[in-house]
Amino acid sequence: MRDATAEKTETALDAASLVTDMAKRARAAARVLASLNAEARTAALRAGAAAIRAAAPAILAANAIDMERGRSLGLTHALLDRLMLNEARIEGIAAGVEAVAGIADPVNTVAAEWERPNGLRIQQVRVPIGVIGIVYESRPNVTADAGALCVRSGNAVILRGGSEALNSSRAIHAAFVAGLASAGVPADAVQLVPVADRAAVGAMLTAQGLIDVIVPRGGKSLVARVQSDARVPVLAHLDGNNHVYVDGGADPEKALTIVRNAKLRRTGVCGAAETVLVDEAAKDQLAPLARMLLDAGCEVRGDAATQGVDPRVKPAAEADWDTEYLEPIVAMKLVHGVSDAIAHIERHGSHHTDAIVTEDAAAAEAFLSGVDSAIVALNASTQFADGGEFGFGAEIGIATGRLHARGPVGAEQLTTMKYLVRGTGQIRP
Amino acid sequence: MRDATAEKTETALDAASLVTDMAKRARAAARVLASLNAEARTAALRAGAAAIRAAAPAILAANAIDMERGRSLGLTHALLDRLMLNEARIEGIAAGVEAVAGIADPVNTVAAEWERPNGLRIQQVRVPIGVIGIVYESRPNVTADAGALCVRSGNAVILRGGSEALNSSRAIHAAFVAGLASAGVPADAVQLVPVADRAAVGAMLTAQGLIDVIVPRGGKSLVARVQSDARVPVLAHLDGNNHVYVDGGADPEKALTIVRNAKLRRTGVCGAAETVLVDEAAKDQLAPLARMLLDAGCEVRGDAATQGVDPRVKPAAEADWDTEYLEPIVAMKLVHGVSDAIAHIERHGSHHTDAIVTEDAAAAEAFLSGVDSAIVALNASTQFADGGEFGFGAEIGIATGRLHARGPVGAEQLTTMKYLVRGTGQIRP
Repeated sequence: MRDATAEKTETALDAASLVTDMAKRARAAARVLASLNAEARTAALRAGAAAIRAAAPAILAANAIDMERGRSLGLTHALLDRLMLNEARIEGIAAGVEAVAGIADPVNTVAAEWERPNGLRIQQVRVPIGVIGIVYESRPNVTADAGALCVRSGNAVILRGGSEALNSSRAIHAAFVAGLASAGVPADAVQLVPVADRAAVGAMLTAQGLIDVIVPRGGKSLVARVQSDARVPVLAHLDGNNHVYVDGGADPEKALTIVRNAKLRRTGVCGAAETVLVDEAAKDQLAPLARMLLDAGCEVRGDAATQGVDPRVKPAAEADWDTEYLEPIVAMKLVHGVSDAIAHIERHGSHHTDAIVTEDAAAAEAFLSGVDSAIVALNASTQFADGGEFGFGAEIGIATGRLHARGPVGAEQLTTMKYLVRGTGQIRP
Repeated sequence: MRDATAEKTETALDAASLVTDMAKRARAAARVLASLNAEARTAALRAGAAAIRAAAPAILAANAIDMERGRSLGLTHALLDRLMLNEARIEGIAAGVEAVAGIADPVNTVAAEWERPNGLRIQQVRVPIGVIGIVYESRPNVTADAGALCVRSGNAVILRGGSEALNSSRAIHAAFVAGLASAGVPADAVQLVPVADRAAVGAMLTAQGLIDVIVPRGGKSLVARVQSDARVPVLAHLDGNNHVYVDGGADPEKALTIVRNAKLRRTGVCGAAETVLVDEAAKDQLAPLARMLLDAGCEVRGDAATQGVDPRVKPAAEADWDTEYLEPIVAMKLVHGVSDAIAHIERHGSHHTDAIVTEDAAAAEAFLSGVDSAIVALNASTQFADGGEFGFGAEIGIATGRLHARGPVGAEQLTTMKYLVRGTGQIRP
């Protein structure tokens, strides 16, 4: 019998050669994709959407296998719900691809142009990044969403979805690619890793020169693995430990409305608020805010002041200030003005999305400039942290890294730049 | 006696704690630096330049120690020349810092702004990246150049220069920082790793969360080490295996002038041309081009056609097409039109800077769109690959990666973005 190490090594080698082969085909397809014009990419996306719609029965059948397996594996209700497809959800996936077809094509658009004193005309032009690797978990819709956004931006993509959704993803992928191919986009432009093997993720993360960037979409363990193992650049999507700060200058009605929406509109999204900070100068709003949340079914974990306003408030532990619940749970705390709020957010936040509620212009500008997060909002819900809400048409997520893209990642953020320098014989002195 | 492994581990631990301490102080200083206004950063840079100028005697004395040591170590003439400082070079360093003081400050400038149908006003604002790590080799001027560009863009920086230039770098750094501090910029905003220990580089490369980006400036072995060991994002500056393609539609005079400048103006810079491709349709230009280079003292390594035009031409080996000489040596080859030129460049080039010489608009546009390099030039020398020549005022190098910045990296490229969302109570439906 061979030992486990030898077997593991062989699996890793297989995965590496699989990913290398896929990436080389992706590179060739990327060249074709980038050379098409915007209209051709739009037509291909529409054909892909139509093909997904037409393949609904096959996709549902594949999803039934994943759901059955998921139940037998004892997946949580939340995971099964993410996995589950029905007619309406498939229509949503097709409509999502059509929405991406409707986004302005970023490829070859001019970001800046200027002329130099020596007569050189310089243009900075957006071009595709090249080959993008997307590693995601159980939502099968990412297969089409992410694939479409990559096609829109002229990039080839290697998709590696969660094993729970493998059959569903394969069915969506097969339909989407057939549609694209019918409109002249090479099938290799959108590839799905055909196996559930975790070694494939490792091979993608180390495919330097073959894959240009990895976009992880998933929970903390996936993101942590990507952060530690990736040798390819990563467009990270870390957690959103987001805050709403209710300033002394806040309009109490706006504070109630914004806090409720930021925490409870959807609790499982990365833009959901997790901590509410209340200015001492707005101390009388602590009780109505806490009660509003409690009455809406939200658990409140508070500091001493918050515990004092309602017996249902539980004591917050130190770890609560650092926790992204993604559940109807909120941490609440009194702070001493805007600078203390900023200090708390800088110490405990994840630099994703943070909001202030105030009518005081000085406090607003102090917060907007002082909070170092991808998105900083004034008198608006943190749940606006979304590419669609920003007007990007679609997004692949909210980047929390500091390089390349920060905030919602849409088609434009999936491009890079190239300089075109047009001269008439200039040489450098 | 302790064994070498234990000693090495201890060195690595020491380096890690040194870099951790430096990075934490840099983070605190970065906050102060970013909160200053543009005028304050400008004044600090001018004070830094003045302090370098005033410290010329001390810098020259320190440089003499490095030069003496360099000679005893048998450094090459080229390395000694890079290391050597004199009054004029110190004046050049001070003037370089003043030039950076004159660049428009990118911090808090608005890159884009728009309003959503729901009334949300969104601004995309440039903010500093945070803490930048710069690893460089023997040129002591990088200490001031890179430090100044980081201050201009509101970033704190940890500089790790080559051991050969350590005394010179320390003297320049001490003067620069004293100047900055006299104008209110914390000394920790620009730190120099005080030891020549290579373990410090390893500690910088793995300082995730402490250093936001590493910029390597140096030869292939440094860049290779950074690429393989870095866990912190890297703004890579790889080699420039650059091409000039002389198209059938080229003006012969422009071709001669541009090829000569691209290859020979300075042979040791990353924008220097390394291969000249000549269209079969411009075959009669092969001889004058080759002879012009040979007569100017340049070694020519050619394909069969090029060898036929002059007995001094040496045969090119396959490796020549992939080589960045950085010397007065050029590879020359006939190709079959613009598409063959593009194919050669895509196969052998390094995606840095490539140029076409032609008066044919269709060939020009085919080349400009078909060559996937950071800079693609028409009828202009590849030696324009330079932030100063682009109008950026100064640069830290030419980025060849595909993410964040591609091409010359100036002050603007050392910033990231943040979205400010201003509402009047909006919640997400």
